[in-house]
Amino acid sequence: MPEGDGLSYRAAGVDLEAAERAKGALKNLVSKTRDENTLSEMGLFGGLYALPGGMENPVLVSSADGVGTKLKLAFLTGTHDTVGQDLVNHCVNDIIVQGAKPLFFLDYLATGQMEEGVVTQVVRGVAQACLENGCALLGGETAEMPDFYAEGEYDLAGFITGVVEREKILDGSLVQTGDVLIALGSTGLHTNGYSLARKIVFDAMGLDVEDLLPGLGKTVAEALLAIHRSYLPAVRSILASTRLHGLAHITGGGIPGNLPRVLGPGQGARIDTGSWEIPPLFQILQSGGKVAPEEMFRVFNMGVGMIAIVPPVEADSVANDLAASGEATWILGEVTAGGGVESV
Amino acid sequence: MPEGDGLSYRAAGVDLEAAERAKGALKNLVSKTRDENTLSEMGLFGGLYALPGGMENPVLVSSADGVGTKLKLAFLTGTHDTVGQDLVNHCVNDIIVQGAKPLFFLDYLATGQMEEGVVTQVVRGVAQACLENGCALLGGETAEMPDFYAEGEYDLAGFITGVVEREKILDGSLVQTGDVLIALGSTGLHTNGYSLARKIVFDAMGLDVEDLLPGLGKTVAEALLAIHRSYLPAVRSILASTRLHGLAHITGGGIPGNLPRVLGPGQGARIDTGSWEIPPLFQILQSGGKVAPEEMFRVFNMGVGMIAIVPPVEADSVANDLAASGEATWILGEVTAGGGVESV
Repeated sequence: MPEGDGLSYRAAGVDLEAAERAKGALKNLVSKTRDENTLSEMGLFGGLYALPGGMENPVLVSSADGVGTKLKLAFLTGTHDTVGQDLVNHCVNDIIVQGAKPLFFLDYLATGQMEEGVVTQVVRGVAQACLENGCALLGGETAEMPDFYAEGEYDLAGFITGVVEREKILDGSLVQTGDVLIALGSTGLHTNGYSLARKIVFDAMGLDVEDLLPGLGKTVAEALLAIHRSYLPAVRSILASTRLHGLAHITGGGIPGNLPRVLGPGQGARIDTGSWEIPPLFQILQSGGKVAPEEMFRVFNMGVGMIAIVPPVEADSVANDLAASGEATWILGEVTAGGGVESV
Repeated sequence: MPEGDGLSYRAAGVDLEAAERAKGALKNLVSKTRDENTLSEMGLFGGLYALPGGMENPVLVSSADGVGTKLKLAFLTGTHDTVGQDLVNHCVNDIIVQGAKPLFFLDYLATGQMEEGVVTQVVRGVAQACLENGCALLGGETAEMPDFYAEGEYDLAGFITGVVEREKILDGSLVQTGDVLIALGSTGLHTNGYSLARKIVFDAMGLDVEDLLPGLGKTVAEALLAIHRSYLPAVRSILASTRLHGLAHITGGGIPGNLPRVLGPGQGARIDTGSWEIPPLFQILQSGGKVAPEEMFRVFNMGVGMIAIVPPVEADSVANDLAASGEATWILGEVTAGGGVESV
């Protein structure tokens, strides 16, 4: 296109064709996540998803989330294919705790100058996790925003929608005093506490991303980029069962910030801190940053990625089922009549 | 909380209580957008929305979008209550073009250091637009990401889900050669082309946000912050009518980039460029940046925010109905058998 000596969008930092090329490469990735209810290809204004038939009172469950400053680890290491998995798995976990199964996902990827290879890597991770969770990647927005992001950086957020029968919603109403808390192990920090973790590792401990974390046998990059675990495969079979009274996803705020969100009014919980060994990564962070123990539990998951709440009589069988799915599980504590989360 | 001399999340730049306080202030705003299908308050992991009853084959239509670099105008002027409206209206327009009516919306707001007043203003705009579009603000994520955004800056994205009966989806299959294109006037740039517009106004023309745009009688801020128009109020009554064959939202890519997305295979369009006067703002940008005419039409909406496609026999009556809803409308052109968008 002849542009003379005047200004153009490309000169202003936005290359529309590059955006289109990147989206073209993504189309193939995305199409693999389609299922029989996905009625649209990428490129329409909105994505189309037919509500699965046979439901009596379908309730949609939707959540938005970002990857947060874990992205800085991706930038430092040039590893861009895991953060999409973090994002999708995080979103999936956020809706299964209300009893929902995921239907579709949309991503939002914003960057200063679009690097096609990076965009493709990011969306490859998103698409792979969508596949693994049986969730259609229905659409998304890739925004090129000059002057917003540092060179080589981007932000990544996502939106998930799932569905649950109205009478199967997990809303705390089933939770009874005396119910047992079953912990499901995390794979690392998941996507929370990275601003503090980075400050500890890079500033206080003076490490580089490729340095070994003392005593862990892993590099900083390996430890901090461990993928946020999706608990859907393990939890799927018990999601609609009467054995399950509640599920809490342990994200920002840790156990004390998240467990109360799924309890009934006035209920609290007793956490047996001797029931598991805090994984070495968290111990390293705590001593490296001289972080107060309460702060550690308020910022990090401390090895607990999800908590299932079940009646005492079912505790062993549910724990066994979850363990059979490959989860590290243990009895973490119990639901109490008093408010607050108490650690003993 | 006693933190001794060790590191804390607050020292790392993340103030969890500030985030909670801001969300508390938003709760009241958000609750106004609730309708009888909204089953959850803010603060759960996922928002709950009951699918409206009485539908035969409900298809969900979902879209993600951001505000883009129009946000820079908000930063420069300290005006944070309109960008949320831009975002919601943009998303609403993106799903009505497929025949859907909005059900719910979620926002993603990311910033370096959360300023409670700014967050509240942004979400006030989001909530107000949700109210105006009859759309529940079901949830969202407010992310505090130190070292990601410049001081006083943020990014804002959103995600909408609507619903349409399967047989009422607008997918191009109704569009006939000879159908009439009816333009609906835009209120300004809407949310597209801001990287170029800022370069023209601030760099090439050397203006400040409070300067008057020569010949427009408005300041740069007033002209460039004009709110992206929602066409739902005007289009609602004809959405499911047989008179409507298609709708195109004119966003990034302009008329040539967006109109073909809603035509049938092989179809094209003839645009009568003499059918409307390009609004002065676009003329000022074109001359101020010496931008090639084709580039103007490829980047900006040029005064056309949406295009309705109707059979010739219905053109006058639809145009009258839209005009009665307060829209500036005119006959823009027609659908042709050949591919491509041709301007005459």
